[in-house]
Amino acid sequence: MHVIVDFQVIPMGVGVSVSKYVAECEKIVIAAGLERSLHAFGTNISGPWDEVMACVKRCHERLHEMGAPRIASALKIGTRVDKPQTMQDKLDSVNTQLDAD
Amino acid sequence: MHVIVDFQVIPMGVGVSVSKYVAECEKIVIAAGLERSLHAFGTNISGPWDEVMACVKRCHERLHEMGAPRIASALKIGTRVDKPQTMQDKLDSVNTQLDAD
Amino acid sequence: MHVIVDFQVIPMGVGVSVSKYVAECEKIVIAAGLERSLHAFGTNISGPWDEVMACVKRCHERLHEMGAPRIASALKIGTRVDKPQTMQDKLDSVNTQLDAD
Amino acid sequence: MHVIVDFQVIPMGVGVSVSKYVAECEKIVIAAGLERSLHAFGTNISGPWDEVMACVKRCHERLHEMGAPRIASALKIGTRVDKPQTMQDKLDSVNTQLDAD
Repeated sequence: MHVIVDFQVIPMGVGVSVSKYVAECEKIVIAAGLERSLHAFGTNISGPWDEVMACVKRCHERLHEMGAPRIASALKIGTRVDKPQTMQDKLDSVNTQLDAD
Repeated sequence: MHVIVDFQVIPMGVGVSVSKYVAECEKIVIAAGLERSLHAFGTNISGPWDEVMACVKRCHERLHEMGAPRIASALKIGTRVDKPQTMQDKLDSVNTQLDAD
Repeated sequence: MHVIVDFQVIPMGVGVSVSKYVAECEKIVIAAGLERSLHAFGTNISGPWDEVMACVKRCHERLHEMGAPRIASALKIGTRVDKPQTMQDKLDSVNTQLDAD
Repeated sequence: MHVIVDFQVIPMGVGVSVSKYVAECEKIVIAAGLERSLHAFGTNISGPWDEVMACVKRCHERLHEMGAPRIASALKIGTRVDKPQTMQDKLDSVNTQLDAD
């Protein structure tokens, strides 16, 4: 089962700046060879369900290893069986509607 | 790694009423023997990471089997290594503050 | 427009324990006279759109006043025009399905 | 109070393809003159709290006018009082960490 997710990670108890933790998660996704796209509130990740979820777990494990005592993350999960769809397809379908006006 | 999650599932393309799909997910969590608490926007689930995430995957698979062509779900994931904490502990820590006033 | 929301607030830069901030938000919702139901990952709130959203804004303002330098909150928003629906209706429609088995 | 949000809108009961509804929301944000950045699971929007929230409300109203009987949206809300921060600043702080390796 293919999945596109949006993953946001918030380490708690490590102060107000969390970019080094977010960057570490990016490295984990990059190392896994998964397609990703960073935005201001998280990262879109696309790939096989088990590989994507293994990354999410690895991010929690790694951030705890880095010293974060508590982690709150949010994962939006999209699956569909009616047709294949990439992250870019999703953007294109909206932008095409915008351009049509 | 122990995890407490909040899981919301939205099947798309099956009409406006989705309670039978939400109920099916509840059954999957119950069958897995995991602690759960339903609320108006999802379900809190508590347990070992791999068991909880297997339920989430099974929910997506089962809802597609039931005919949902597309699923959007949202998962909030909480882990902490500083102390054990149950779902009830989280509620109690807030309610104690409220009662103190 | 009536709305049912699920509101989770995460103050950042204030340490690992955040229950006093969550409790403060509960007090704001209670003071506003809105129907609410606390769970382990947030609070369901029901009421007129503008009143509910005024509470959400007041929570951010109040938590900053209490010393939180940064706040990440998450709000799920449900509106429907096909029929009125309470928070309890949503729970009942799922639980009825579960009891039917 | 300045805010950066991530807004995802899911119209229910209108079939499996929802891009025209998402595009309509984009138009509302564009018309409001707010900074925005579309990604595969929503849109980042930056601006004054009241203006951003007025857009969110207008999106719900407009999608119901277009025929969506039910809407589930998700809004991540970020505010901070320790320093000003743009959407681009958030991306830069992560990407700088990645480039440092």
